[in-house]
Amino acid sequence: MNYKMMGRFISQILILEALFMIPAAIISLCYGEYNVMWSFALALCATAVVSLILHLLCKGAPSAFYAKEGLVCVGLSWIILSLFGCLPFWLSREIPKFIDAFFEIVSGFTTTGSSVVANVEGLSKGIIYWRSFSNWLGGMGVLVFLLAFTGQTGSGFTMHLLRAESPGPNVGKLVPKMRTTAAILYIIYIAMTVVNFLFLVCGRMPVFEAVCTAMSTAGTGGFGIKNDSFASFSPYIQNVTTVFMILFAVNFSCYYLLLMGQFRAVFKDEELRTFIGIILGAIILITLNIRNLYGTLGESVRHASFQVGTLISSTGFASTDFDLWPSFSKAILMCIMVFGACAGSTGGGLKIARMLLIFKSLRRNIRQILNPKKVQVVRNNDAVVGEKVLDNTNAYLAAYVIILFVSFVLISLDGFSVESNFSAVLSCFNNMGPGFDAVGPTCNYGGYSAFSKLVLSLDMLLGRLEIFPILVLMNRSTWKR
Amino acid sequence: MNYKMMGRFISQILILEALFMIPAAIISLCYGEYNVMWSFALALCATAVVSLILHLLCKGAPSAFYAKEGLVCVGLSWIILSLFGCLPFWLSREIPKFIDAFFEIVSGFTTTGSSVVANVEGLSKGIIYWRSFSNWLGGMGVLVFLLAFTGQTGSGFTMHLLRAESPGPNVGKLVPKMRTTAAILYIIYIAMTVVNFLFLVCGRMPVFEAVCTAMSTAGTGGFGIKNDSFASFSPYIQNVTTVFMILFAVNFSCYYLLLMGQFRAVFKDEELRTFIGIILGAIILITLNIRNLYGTLGESVRHASFQVGTLISSTGFASTDFDLWPSFSKAILMCIMVFGACAGSTGGGLKIARMLLIFKSLRRNIRQILNPKKVQVVRNNDAVVGEKVLDNTNAYLAAYVIILFVSFVLISLDGFSVESNFSAVLSCFNNMGPGFDAVGPTCNYGGYSAFSKLVLSLDMLLGRLEIFPILVLMNRSTWKR
Repeated sequence: MNYKMMGRFISQILILEALFMIPAAIISLCYGEYNVMWSFALALCATAVVSLILHLLCKGAPSAFYAKEGLVCVGLSWIILSLFGCLPFWLSREIPKFIDAFFEIVSGFTTTGSSVVANVEGLSKGIIYWRSFSNWLGGMGVLVFLLAFTGQTGSGFTMHLLRAESPGPNVGKLVPKMRTTAAILYIIYIAMTVVNFLFLVCGRMPVFEAVCTAMSTAGTGGFGIKNDSFASFSPYIQNVTTVFMILFAVNFSCYYLLLMGQFRAVFKDEELRTFIGIILGAIILITLNIRNLYGTLGESVRHASFQVGTLISSTGFASTDFDLWPSFSKAILMCIMVFGACAGSTGGGLKIARMLLIFKSLRRNIRQILNPKKVQVVRNNDAVVGEKVLDNTNAYLAAYVIILFVSFVLISLDGFSVESNFSAVLSCFNNMGPGFDAVGPTCNYGGYSAFSKLVLSLDMLLGRLEIFPILVLMNRSTWKR
Repeated sequence: MNYKMMGRFISQILILEALFMIPAAIISLCYGEYNVMWSFALALCATAVVSLILHLLCKGAPSAFYAKEGLVCVGLSWIILSLFGCLPFWLSREIPKFIDAFFEIVSGFTTTGSSVVANVEGLSKGIIYWRSFSNWLGGMGVLVFLLAFTGQTGSGFTMHLLRAESPGPNVGKLVPKMRTTAAILYIIYIAMTVVNFLFLVCGRMPVFEAVCTAMSTAGTGGFGIKNDSFASFSPYIQNVTTVFMILFAVNFSCYYLLLMGQFRAVFKDEELRTFIGIILGAIILITLNIRNLYGTLGESVRHASFQVGTLISSTGFASTDFDLWPSFSKAILMCIMVFGACAGSTGGGLKIARMLLIFKSLRRNIRQILNPKKVQVVRNNDAVVGEKVLDNTNAYLAAYVIILFVSFVLISLDGFSVESNFSAVLSCFNNMGPGFDAVGPTCNYGGYSAFSKLVLSLDMLLGRLEIFPILVLMNRSTWKR
């Protein structure tokens, strides 16, 4: 293990985090929240000092760097990022317990959006900004940011890191250089966030609220600024957010292809077509199921679309209390929670691309039983998918199911209902936010014990980093010579 | 497709089923239930006539027979067996609706034990016997019975059939001849059922009840003879049943090895060790969790053991209403429901052997990420497991998850709670019996719509036949020239 290089890398991540705290401190200052400002200043100093110490300790690192170190590095970075990122919450006493503050920031960085805060409107502006910013940064990834905008080079190094942090079964490069790929992704991301912000401001949302909402939407995070999430916003704002949540859940390489004028490739993309098909299907079925709950058909369509958009993109906002919807709608929502967004987007879940691979590989298996002598391959967008990718996808599903069940048993110790526990795990693991029953859209995760919050925090990290970086951290042989 | 050979085979299955109805008719006669006796006689005649017609139509079949036909044959046999097997329920008007009667017999043959009958004690003796007998026959398999005790030969033919009907990822032969293997399995099965019966009679259970209970236990089916399942039986009877449920959930080849004196091989069997480990772990955790619910520690241990035994073996009896237990115990019970019994037993679920393979293949995958250049293999009992078996196991898990979710959405249309629906699907698909909430141990499946009952019946067949025989039936390319 190349500990020195890992240490240097984590030192860079921390200094970046310290820099990110400056705007939050300034916002607190502007709003006259001096206590919060000092918390940010203190957290900033602590982060910078640790970064400096790490930097000094890890001078002269050798340059050899393998896939294993990439995974460990990503897993560790995210945990350390969260440990320092939660300091402002805790120091300002806005979230008095450390485990709660940790849960909240992990929920932020992993773009889950599950909260322990019952009264969001009572939080100070600086803290609200920091929550939404964590959603935004976590959406595209902090390591990708570092690669895109700082001088990090070394192709093996960057490739391993980007592979480990980016969602989806098969991470591709847009352009030959990894660093340029990362920069292109972030520029598209920033541009879309700004457009979202402008649309919100046009709907007469105050600037500060629009900044926070746009950031939470872009990261498909779901930290809201109101206690009732989106219920009290105007239909215009709800519809704008529905559209943007879905846009941010699309594979960003599609946008790059569109910019390059390759409309045909985007139009024929199997994942995108499936994604749109699922969204339309779910909206129609749910609208039919809830048509009697709201005054007009238009209102039913609006709420159905919003909830489908929020759950398939794993954002986790709510325009209405969908915990009160009929079982059929809830069952569909649970399914699209698991399906998740497209690979290479800011959304969570199993990812549509992975679902397609699992489905196709199953179909191949059945065909092979029917015709044992014929060699069958799995194709995606007409290209043959390698057996190793299929193996990894199947292993991913296995790990997914095992983690789901283990977490479910562990948090059941708290005694909440089966529905609460199962949906809490499903929601955190898929980086969604709300679940059903005791963790429904009108409730929060504050009732769970410290142990359960730790389990759920781990689930959020497992979900965001797609399991393996965290599993590798917990593997004994990783730490052996 | 060798339709003629399949037709001849199904004709044999039907004549066997007709023969099995004779004892039921005699029992009805002895108890003076003339109406029920005539129902059995009528069903018997109908079955025999259809069998005869099929036999005459399918004369002179060619002998070529492939894996595909084996799967189709098994899938079709079980559906046709159920269609005729439900006639006595329906004709006697003891279960007036045909779909209910079909659900009940599918539940019987697949050893699920889910019932639509609210008042079991109100059923006539003939019908109670037929329910328990369906559990017994379905446990070891009707095709295996046919192979074991009739003149069916043709090695490719028998091998394909046995592979398709027997549970577990990798079906082995005990002796070189498949027919002898089937016979050995059935003889062990019959002997153990008789021992179970004797133990029950020693506990002063009436002979008829003991026969039915022993058959339901042996098949790990779970059709009870009392409305409260096992709650009113004596602790002795409960304990005897706990032990036998677990014994019938062990791979029967272990018993064969014991008979051959190969104690070492049995002792070192990984699946058996894991199975026993899970049982002990679950009993201890649940006992600790429910220790305050019952008067003495002994009583808590007894109920914990009974429920763990009944759910890991997928029998589905209940000695107490475990729906009232705390969430932690319920979560553990749901997990062992999914794990299921050992491969090659009469139990259901994913099977411990398959769980082990999934787990080991995941561990292999992580090791391969850590050391990409080292070739890693998966071993079971020190033997290398073929990649094809691993592929099939992963495909099995994928199919399992997909079927679970699709069924869950479909039966949600009826409007029961998420917990009811999810546990109903889980329970039927794993051939368990009771679920939680609306389908808890004190309730039944009568409230579901005809459509949901059909979906659940299909789930039971999918679970019992381990998915592929039924999936192949639904595959378009199976029926193409």
